[in-house]
Amino acid sequence: MSEEKLDATIEKEMGRKETGRIEAFSDGVFAVAITLLVFNLKVPQLPAGDTSPVIDLGKALFNQWPSYLAFVTSFATILIMWVSHHSIFKMVYKSDSPFLFANGLLLMLVTVVPFPTALVAAYLRDPAAAMACAVYAGIFVLINIAYNLLWWTASHKRTLLNPDVSDAQVKSLARNMYFGFPVYLLATLLAFLNPYITIVICTMMWIYWTFTFFERSSTTEVLES
Amino acid sequence: MSEEKLDATIEKEMGRKETGRIEAFSDGVFAVAITLLVFNLKVPQLPAGDTSPVIDLGKALFNQWPSYLAFVTSFATILIMWVSHHSIFKMVYKSDSPFLFANGLLLMLVTVVPFPTALVAAYLRDPAAAMACAVYAGIFVLINIAYNLLWWTASHKRTLLNPDVSDAQVKSLARNMYFGFPVYLLATLLAFLNPYITIVICTMMWIYWTFTFFERSSTTEVLES
Amino acid sequence: MSEEKLDATIEKEMGRKETGRIEAFSDGVFAVAITLLVFNLKVPQLPAGDTSPVIDLGKALFNQWPSYLAFVTSFATILIMWVSHHSIFKMVYKSDSPFLFANGLLLMLVTVVPFPTALVAAYLRDPAAAMACAVYAGIFVLINIAYNLLWWTASHKRTLLNPDVSDAQVKSLARNMYFGFPVYLLATLLAFLNPYITIVICTMMWIYWTFTFFERSSTTEVLES
Amino acid sequence: MSEEKLDATIEKEMGRKETGRIEAFSDGVFAVAITLLVFNLKVPQLPAGDTSPVIDLGKALFNQWPSYLAFVTSFATILIMWVSHHSIFKMVYKSDSPFLFANGLLLMLVTVVPFPTALVAAYLRDPAAAMACAVYAGIFVLINIAYNLLWWTASHKRTLLNPDVSDAQVKSLARNMYFGFPVYLLATLLAFLNPYITIVICTMMWIYWTFTFFERSSTTEVLES
Repeated sequence: MSEEKLDATIEKEMGRKETGRIEAFSDGVFAVAITLLVFNLKVPQLPAGDTSPVIDLGKALFNQWPSYLAFVTSFATILIMWVSHHSIFKMVYKSDSPFLFANGLLLMLVTVVPFPTALVAAYLRDPAAAMACAVYAGIFVLINIAYNLLWWTASHKRTLLNPDVSDAQVKSLARNMYFGFPVYLLATLLAFLNPYITIVICTMMWIYWTFTFFERSSTTEVLES
Repeated sequence: MSEEKLDATIEKEMGRKETGRIEAFSDGVFAVAITLLVFNLKVPQLPAGDTSPVIDLGKALFNQWPSYLAFVTSFATILIMWVSHHSIFKMVYKSDSPFLFANGLLLMLVTVVPFPTALVAAYLRDPAAAMACAVYAGIFVLINIAYNLLWWTASHKRTLLNPDVSDAQVKSLARNMYFGFPVYLLATLLAFLNPYITIVICTMMWIYWTFTFFERSSTTEVLES
Repeated sequence: MSEEKLDATIEKEMGRKETGRIEAFSDGVFAVAITLLVFNLKVPQLPAGDTSPVIDLGKALFNQWPSYLAFVTSFATILIMWVSHHSIFKMVYKSDSPFLFANGLLLMLVTVVPFPTALVAAYLRDPAAAMACAVYAGIFVLINIAYNLLWWTASHKRTLLNPDVSDAQVKSLARNMYFGFPVYLLATLLAFLNPYITIVICTMMWIYWTFTFFERSSTTEVLES
Repeated sequence: MSEEKLDATIEKEMGRKETGRIEAFSDGVFAVAITLLVFNLKVPQLPAGDTSPVIDLGKALFNQWPSYLAFVTSFATILIMWVSHHSIFKMVYKSDSPFLFANGLLLMLVTVVPFPTALVAAYLRDPAAAMACAVYAGIFVLINIAYNLLWWTASHKRTLLNPDVSDAQVKSLARNMYFGFPVYLLATLLAFLNPYITIVICTMMWIYWTFTFFERSSTTEVLES
């Protein structure tokens, strides 16, 4: 290894550190938010004097399925968001204030997710389910906007991007994110038709993104590394 | 890269590690505290036999706006505090006990923030709002004192500061922090006149700091890096 | 140190970083999940007008022993899981999508653990204990499957493994994990015979793994480092 | 820098990494546990039809002083524990299974702290205070035992210690920790005489350790770095 190369390597490492603490803090927020989702799973109370407690506890646990569904959907969605966040930060090697602000907005919305999740868990089998599910998908609309904002602040003049990121990569990431906006908006509106459609769309979204990510990572090495 | 330079680079890196674990621990505390704010957002209970549940859930969610306002204000304020904490630690390369103690005091007050936030969320539309808002702004007065103490322990003899930090930077940071004290004190007192003024001042503070940070980071490179 | 060696060292370090952020995020999730277990320990309420409050608070605290038992068992099990996760990631130096997906599934199940723990704490001395304990051990069956999946995605073609990991190590880790599946499944089924057996088996499992780990780490250095 | 020195530096860095992930995980647990203490601060409920709500909310907040006292004492004690943990890990450069086990025991007890803190907050002004305070100090007795165990597993044969740690340092750290055991035991027993004595002793302990740390760090550089 020549001195120049070593120099460049060390400087690159140091350059990475500029965004390192933001990334570590963001990771912390994602990790706490995703773990707090478990508070939506509540221990059911059996009525006093229950004559078949084992079966009734089983039934009570089974009847909480909207909680489990909301838990899995929110967990998977936050995890996918974290992967996207990671993808963005891998292409970024500097930060500025609009970027920090957009990241802050995104983190705020991510920490909010346990709230609409609790709302869906509480109301999915209730006549008020339409509103609960609309709020749930509505939060994902806002999160999508925050992601687009984050990526725009990072890439619009390419000032914060790593020089070896190609235009194709910038566009591919943007396209993948734009796409989420109309789908989540549709999911929000369709809640008033049938709340289950909203949950199905949200579930399909994270499954879709997981598979896209599979494919993408086998073709473009940079995104995977 | 000469051997001396490499030597210095590695030593600098190791020097940074002295405060590295304190910084990582502080980041963890900030990340958990900011994420716990979501517990102030509660799932509303609809009365049994509600005849228009979808609209009523919408109304109940809307009526919780004091919770959302308190959530956003606290989230943004903790985030700005974290950025300030980061700015301070970027200039510090050693730690001593008074510095550790001041940092501990600061962290304690930061973890407290969800409590007055819950207080404001519960009482903002209530006759007791004045007391809730005074306590809310009062915590920020205390946090401001802790920040000034932290910066003072780091900079008063410059023993803990990175040698390349200029006097102008030390003063600029101090000035920016002194300023918070009278404003938050005023916000505390004005709560008894009108609690909403307190919330408006606290909101203006984080917006002001976000913009100041914007400007500052475009003029002085060191603070941004 | 020759240039080649330095080169290799730095590249190895960078290679490690590929899985570094996933590992750091996973650690965060484990750390939060393990700490949230404390919410299963509840402050007992004494009846109003209690005539011997000191003794009665002591008794009330003592009567909560199912909570303490569930807390210790879950804490130790999550900790052992974290150690296993660490062992797996020490042998892995690359990641791909199936591996990320398996890791996500594992993390989701780990964050769930506080829920069945609360269930056992609430129902262990109750007629419904059988169901609570079956769910508790059932989660560990699922976690075991997720671990096997994670290790399989990492090792089946050895594409993600560190080249110096021997076949013996791959098999030894797999064998250790397969073993958990039938035992936890048995613990799940035996809950309907006697719920305490389930807790005893789960306790024996983490004690067994702790001791195995002891032995293993004294014979094979690689696993310990 | 000679090649040998660079080699040694890099190897030392890698050597540190062996305990690095345990340290990072432990930090995460400490950070979450210390932040969860805030849940002991509860929003007071005012009676309906209160005629002087502002003053009554102030009074209700003031009457919660046992919560604040317990919060500050626990926060400061966990922080001091974290500093001690940090001191121990700075002298350790390898880990083995008994050490990992002792660290796990310590972490479990640290995560428990919010529970006796809640107990003290709930019962300090109640006739049952003696039991609550005895449990509170009792947890610190157990934590002290875990610390002594951790330090013993690390230092008894010096196999895990950094070679440049002197015997004097090993003894000084051990002496400082032994000392905690009889004092916390006394605090536990004296709770039955007067619960406030327990809180005073616990408060004096963290103040004492803060000051000791001040002094120690000015005489022995190694412990500070």
